[in-house]
Amino acid sequence: MREVFHQALEDIQDRLVEIAEMVTVAIDKATTAFETSDVALAEEVIADDSKIDDLAVSVDELAIDTLAIQQPVARDLRIIVSALRTSASLERMGDLAEHIAQLARSRFPERAIPKGLKGTFVKMGKLDVSVARTLVDLLRTQDLRYAAEIRDSDDEIDELHATVYEKVLSEAFSGDASHVVDAALASRYHERFGDHAVSIAKKMVYLSTGDWTGQSDPEADVEIVDGPAGADD
Amino acid sequence: MREVFHQALEDIQDRLVEIAEMVTVAIDKATTAFETSDVALAEEVIADDSKIDDLAVSVDELAIDTLAIQQPVARDLRIIVSALRTSASLERMGDLAEHIAQLARSRFPERAIPKGLKGTFVKMGKLDVSVARTLVDLLRTQDLRYAAEIRDSDDEIDELHATVYEKVLSEAFSGDASHVVDAALASRYHERFGDHAVSIAKKMVYLSTGDWTGQSDPEADVEIVDGPAGADD
Repeated sequence: MREVFHQALEDIQDRLVEIAEMVTVAIDKATTAFETSDVALAEEVIADDSKIDDLAVSVDELAIDTLAIQQPVARDLRIIVSALRTSASLERMGDLAEHIAQLARSRFPERAIPKGLKGTFVKMGKLDVSVARTLVDLLRTQDLRYAAEIRDSDDEIDELHATVYEKVLSEAFSGDASHVVDAALASRYHERFGDHAVSIAKKMVYLSTGDWTGQSDPEADVEIVDGPAGADD
Repeated sequence: MREVFHQALEDIQDRLVEIAEMVTVAIDKATTAFETSDVALAEEVIADDSKIDDLAVSVDELAIDTLAIQQPVARDLRIIVSALRTSASLERMGDLAEHIAQLARSRFPERAIPKGLKGTFVKMGKLDVSVARTLVDLLRTQDLRYAAEIRDSDDEIDELHATVYEKVLSEAFSGDASHVVDAALASRYHERFGDHAVSIAKKMVYLSTGDWTGQSDPEADVEIVDGPAGADD
């Protein structure tokens, strides 16, 4: 029975890695489409999002079947519950990539990136792609050092997110209202993308440290000390 | 054993109703604070959000304990998994109320509502409060007619959300960049609030109709036919 459970667990983890890889491709294409006004690439991201959704549903079904058949308890049970949450976060990361692609498409043939913010959005895009790749590594290896890396990149994204607001609100900003809306929304999507990755990383840390509620964190190196929920909308 | 399971299920449902009631108070106060620049009220929402978070964690712990001890299968298992997702959605609805309160606080003593959009945001606020109240009824009674009501209100919120963008992008809009940012973000928070309620309503419909994946919906009256995920970030 134990061996059967481990096989099921491995299947679930393999599929989560597969979804994370698809999310990495989606955010890479979406940020490139956003930066270069490549509407064909944007369309690809939008069309492919349903594949991510379908795979997330299949992971959930597998997790629920495993709960029903294997009846895990203690840490094994928490691993399965955590997988259900990870699939939900990955599915939302795919949606955020799709939202960025939709912004690129809606402004075409104009550029979606507001004047004066190109450098900032290119950096945020690179950080999002890097966060997604590190998430693949984390899910594949369960090595918590990747959790710390994700957290660091997310901090950088948050800082860039704050500068976007400063820039569009400054006297020097020459864009019109549509540029301000695009910048505010795109920046928020990038920031939420990083938050969901951190939320998954926290779950891995909790599983490893045994502290599910996130009230304390014995892994001082990892420095993941926020509240239990992580994702904020 | 069956009776013990039903007692646990009742406890979980009671706590979900309690969280939904707290979310209703939060969104009511947050939208009032946003409309009237009441910074004290905004502070209350911000301070009380951790109570919603704590209660969501306690529901999750109870659900996980129930899985471990009662080992439910089939529909009972799906009810518990659904409760875990409902608590996550409610927790995020609380966060969105907090974000609206934060916008009100950040603009104080000025009004956070951009010129020309007061009527729109008052309507969105009322719809959000109504959605939250209907969600309490849905969770308390499991009566699927409330799910259809939530869906209808969410459609109205979506329509208002679209008009906010039209208005800030129109020639007639006289606000500056900070008003555009506030309008874009506040409108997005309202829209996401409704989406999370719809996501919970869908889960209830699926549990009732037995179609967990959301690929079909035999309850034609309810008209909940979107993809399985609902919430989009």
